[in-house]
Amino acid sequence: MDHSSPTPLFDQVDNPADLKRLGRDQLPALCAELRRVILDTVSITGGHLGSGMGVVELTVALHYAFDFRSDRLVWDVGHQCYPHKLLTERKARFHTLRQKGGLSGFSNKFESPYDVYLMGHAGTAASAALGIAMGDRMQGVQRHSVAVVGDAAMGCGVAFEALNHAGALEDDRLLVILNDNRWSIAKTVGALSRHLNKLRSGSFYNRAKEAMHGLIQAIPVVGKDLDQRLGDAVDMVKNMVVPGHIFEELGFRYFGPIDGHDVQQVLAALEDVKKLPGVVLLHVLTEKGKGVPGSEDRYDRAHAAKPQPPKKKAEKVPVEPCVLQPVLPVQKPGRSWTEWFGEGMQQLAERDRRVVAITAAMPDGTGLMEFRDRFPDRFVDAGIAEQHAVAMASGMATAGMRPVCAIYSTFLQRGYDQVFQEVILQKLPVLFAMDRGGLVGEDGMTHNGLYDLAFLRCLPGIVLMSPKDGPELHEMMLFALDLPGASGIRYARGNAPNAGDLLGWHGRRQPLELGRMEILRPGSDGAVLAYGHMVQTALEAAALLDKRGIHIEVVNARFCKPLDEQGVLALCDRHDRVVTLEDHTRVGGFGSAVLECLAQHGPVRARVQVMGVPDELLEHMSRSQVLEHCGLTAAAVAERFLAERYVPGNSAPLRR
Amino acid sequence: MDHSSPTPLFDQVDNPADLKRLGRDQLPALCAELRRVILDTVSITGGHLGSGMGVVELTVALHYAFDFRSDRLVWDVGHQCYPHKLLTERKARFHTLRQKGGLSGFSNKFESPYDVYLMGHAGTAASAALGIAMGDRMQGVQRHSVAVVGDAAMGCGVAFEALNHAGALEDDRLLVILNDNRWSIAKTVGALSRHLNKLRSGSFYNRAKEAMHGLIQAIPVVGKDLDQRLGDAVDMVKNMVVPGHIFEELGFRYFGPIDGHDVQQVLAALEDVKKLPGVVLLHVLTEKGKGVPGSEDRYDRAHAAKPQPPKKKAEKVPVEPCVLQPVLPVQKPGRSWTEWFGEGMQQLAERDRRVVAITAAMPDGTGLMEFRDRFPDRFVDAGIAEQHAVAMASGMATAGMRPVCAIYSTFLQRGYDQVFQEVILQKLPVLFAMDRGGLVGEDGMTHNGLYDLAFLRCLPGIVLMSPKDGPELHEMMLFALDLPGASGIRYARGNAPNAGDLLGWHGRRQPLELGRMEILRPGSDGAVLAYGHMVQTALEAAALLDKRGIHIEVVNARFCKPLDEQGVLALCDRHDRVVTLEDHTRVGGFGSAVLECLAQHGPVRARVQVMGVPDELLEHMSRSQVLEHCGLTAAAVAERFLAERYVPGNSAPLRR
Repeated sequence: MDHSSPTPLFDQVDNPADLKRLGRDQLPALCAELRRVILDTVSITGGHLGSGMGVVELTVALHYAFDFRSDRLVWDVGHQCYPHKLLTERKARFHTLRQKGGLSGFSNKFESPYDVYLMGHAGTAASAALGIAMGDRMQGVQRHSVAVVGDAAMGCGVAFEALNHAGALEDDRLLVILNDNRWSIAKTVGALSRHLNKLRSGSFYNRAKEAMHGLIQAIPVVGKDLDQRLGDAVDMVKNMVVPGHIFEELGFRYFGPIDGHDVQQVLAALEDVKKLPGVVLLHVLTEKGKGVPGSEDRYDRAHAAKPQPPKKKAEKVPVEPCVLQPVLPVQKPGRSWTEWFGEGMQQLAERDRRVVAITAAMPDGTGLMEFRDRFPDRFVDAGIAEQHAVAMASGMATAGMRPVCAIYSTFLQRGYDQVFQEVILQKLPVLFAMDRGGLVGEDGMTHNGLYDLAFLRCLPGIVLMSPKDGPELHEMMLFALDLPGASGIRYARGNAPNAGDLLGWHGRRQPLELGRMEILRPGSDGAVLAYGHMVQTALEAAALLDKRGIHIEVVNARFCKPLDEQGVLALCDRHDRVVTLEDHTRVGGFGSAVLECLAQHGPVRARVQVMGVPDELLEHMSRSQVLEHCGLTAAAVAERFLAERYVPGNSAPLRR
Repeated sequence: MDHSSPTPLFDQVDNPADLKRLGRDQLPALCAELRRVILDTVSITGGHLGSGMGVVELTVALHYAFDFRSDRLVWDVGHQCYPHKLLTERKARFHTLRQKGGLSGFSNKFESPYDVYLMGHAGTAASAALGIAMGDRMQGVQRHSVAVVGDAAMGCGVAFEALNHAGALEDDRLLVILNDNRWSIAKTVGALSRHLNKLRSGSFYNRAKEAMHGLIQAIPVVGKDLDQRLGDAVDMVKNMVVPGHIFEELGFRYFGPIDGHDVQQVLAALEDVKKLPGVVLLHVLTEKGKGVPGSEDRYDRAHAAKPQPPKKKAEKVPVEPCVLQPVLPVQKPGRSWTEWFGEGMQQLAERDRRVVAITAAMPDGTGLMEFRDRFPDRFVDAGIAEQHAVAMASGMATAGMRPVCAIYSTFLQRGYDQVFQEVILQKLPVLFAMDRGGLVGEDGMTHNGLYDLAFLRCLPGIVLMSPKDGPELHEMMLFALDLPGASGIRYARGNAPNAGDLLGWHGRRQPLELGRMEILRPGSDGAVLAYGHMVQTALEAAALLDKRGIHIEVVNARFCKPLDEQGVLALCDRHDRVVTLEDHTRVGGFGSAVLECLAQHGPVRARVQVMGVPDELLEHMSRSQVLEHCGLTAAAVAERFLAERYVPGNSAPLRR
């Protein structure tokens, strides 16, 4: 052992087998070392720091008590799995976290056999682990199936559905660990959270755990009959202390709460419940961000750390010689789309007393913290419950309010049916503010918002729009306020251009009109019809092409639905070539809307090409890297007008 | 009063004001009359009989106790609202139920001011009613907000999300009525159902209700302070009888269970709980299909009645003189797509021990009753919990099983996020069997399966297919079994053609190959590329056109994803005109996939037209009527090849 190393124990551990060679008494020290490694690494790479720091002891105890080469461990959401990664043969690559080609920031089954799922949305771990347990039982496989679920995720409908199902089963064996850090991303809302508070204060473990432990230890082999007696005894003990609660009523055997930062206690509890058949819930109390200096009271700080600014990289020389090097200044630090939205919401609320803001556990992420402080009566956090958030919004609209549901594009997938059934079918004025529409970068495929146009555009009557810059986002929000039915505004992660910051556009701002595009600059050598923040990219491409004597028209689509059909047809008759551009999958998105219009009303002069995100699952990397990977850069757009020229109606491409 | 009428009381009641003019002692007789009217009418019109019959007394009591011109009543799902319709100014039109231009089979806000929602999917009423209550509170409006939710719908994740949220609120007032008929569509599954059983047997009402009632009656006006004392007293009484349960723990005041067929008792309970502030749950025991002869033990019979065969209608003369009248024989009574699927599942299960069938509370509707009986160990009913059903399926696939999720297209919207996150991202072999893909007819817009191609096609790697006939459905199921990842098979409501039954197709059955279309008949005057059951329509159109000397090629697409790109390009180069045909919205569906392919790989010779369901909300009517309304008939397809001829590249249409 190298005693000069700051992490002498951790240095001996590459995998769970190594871990098991340590003595139980060494585990607390190992936990301290793990915490140091995570803190040091994540402060450089960035990432979801708090969740992982909160489950160091739990992770160590899990790997000590089980064998997850055969047993199955499903981490809900998965951003709590940094310590798990460090203990499962990935410590040498841990510094590559969330970087291109490096470890992902979530559990990832394609990264390690110890990761059973690639998970990014909350609440499904119990369903998945139950499915595994059932599949194992059907095949006669004997192993443990364990799900680790946060307290806020327990408020997800799908988690309840899973517990409700599991609790009624007779033959399946499932361990759900409730990782109760008492706030989740935002403070946990809902009655369940209050209920948990009651359980926490019960301090059950101090008095009853030893009794239970003793009971179980006294029985050498757990058989079916013995187990029944055991169960009765445990119930008896438990009921003496905690008088019936929700998990018991859902059919689970409940144990806890135990101190999640006492690794010995957690280990002892796991070893106990491991012997029990049926479905068991172990309630573990943890502190999010445990060990992060000064983070205990700051959930936002505990949740994620921003990476250090990377060292300046050498400019990359483009492979294609015909593509010009962008000579644009690096974008000035500005306001994010999220901040523009948050500010716009305050303006809306000042102007209209019917405006109410709804978030699903993301008041900070959606930029609504100031709104919440200024308009507490018109701010509702529904918890991690997108289905309910959307249906509740429809109720508010029914009552005459103007609800704005601020939900990331990726999470709106959870409320999809409610968008259709409770909002669209009712023709109610609910505005969906879809932050993180498009590629998000480091969080990767679980968090990319690449499908919203496809899954919303098919719903009759919805108005879908996306702004080119911050001021236009405000205009669109105002505009949506006067619409009679459902609408969605999509905007991206990262900074938004301010008015006039858009490179190559010096025109007048044209007033917003339903289903009308906006021509930003003329040009006779083709056109780019861009949706949302890709307008900026289109204008940059046009500036690049200007230098080559090629002048393209740039159009800000503004609306995906209703599409400006007349505008599209006229545009496609003015040009030989029109490129549509969007930060969304090419399948069923904005470009497809344009193609559908042309099929219905065409033919037109132009050949139309659709540029968007390719139809593949994208690995995590920085947002600019993934945009480049997808060919969604100014250079790549310019290339379309340089590389080849088609004569419409002629299938042989003409080289320029 | 006309004593010769079989419904003398009902004759006096057109709206709730009329109802309130009746004496309380007359209500039982009114209920009996209502039941008779419903039974007589629905036995002719068809519809969801059982749910409405079960809530006759509850409905009468609700309208007697509240004033739903201002108070708000949200019926979950809404097919329980037949008695409600009869009491709210719609009795004269009740015989038009589910018919074109007639009353809808669900609650429908566009039909009556007494209907707050147009509802068709279970579990969202509590969310909606809570939203209304919150909106009212924000605007200072004083009225009651009431949701009626079935016991099975309580197992929906979204219902839990709503209760969890409501129970933690301080200032809102909400009454949730748990309409507990103890089976829902299929027998209710899950721990909650077992929990309800415990509550039912508590027979709380006999002993404690009178006490509570007396307590409340003794207080003349319910103020905030008084109410607190009242609440404490009620809690005290209740806790003596039912020792803490799930609804209480979610923050609701729980009352019940009461006998839902004793209208006086229900009325008294409603009048009591109406005075209480906060969130209240009233547990009402009902019998689904109460009063339907012989139905009490047959949930399928109780759930819905089939309409009587309609009287033969005169043949309709087509408006367009150039369209031939179909001279096809009426389709022989055959097996439904659902039956083909059910049979196919049994074959799969015989062949492969890994096959497991999953339903979300629809074992009968999805054709899995025989499977359930034959393979009980490999059949799982997840309850009305599509999110969990899909995530659980992914767990089973992780464990090495081959799960088949049989979920109606419309209900899969509930599990959308799980399809992506838990199945697609994990690259797991889960097959989604999407019954009721396309227009469903009488159930109308809430149940149409018109969006699945749009919302699934955008997800990378999924295989989407649809068969032309029953045998091909079996082939596709077998084929899906060998796929490494997610797949979906879509089929329609109604009967499927058998092999060789397809009119105008006498060719050999071509083996299934991933992403390959099947040419069914040649032709030189254009082509129809049809998806799924629309192949039959395409063949019928071709037969019609043959008689006019126009011979079109008919192609069975088989796959929407991966699309047969080579096949599509070749087809579009063989013809001047290609029509794509699908029973799905034209927005983002199969036709759009074809257009995307042509934009990427074209240009081609043909002008392509997309035929599908128009982008609008469709009223309920029979399936054949709505297909005709949408222009998805053989005659309408033939018309495309008769009415006009384009020369490609020339925008002026040439009349033939």
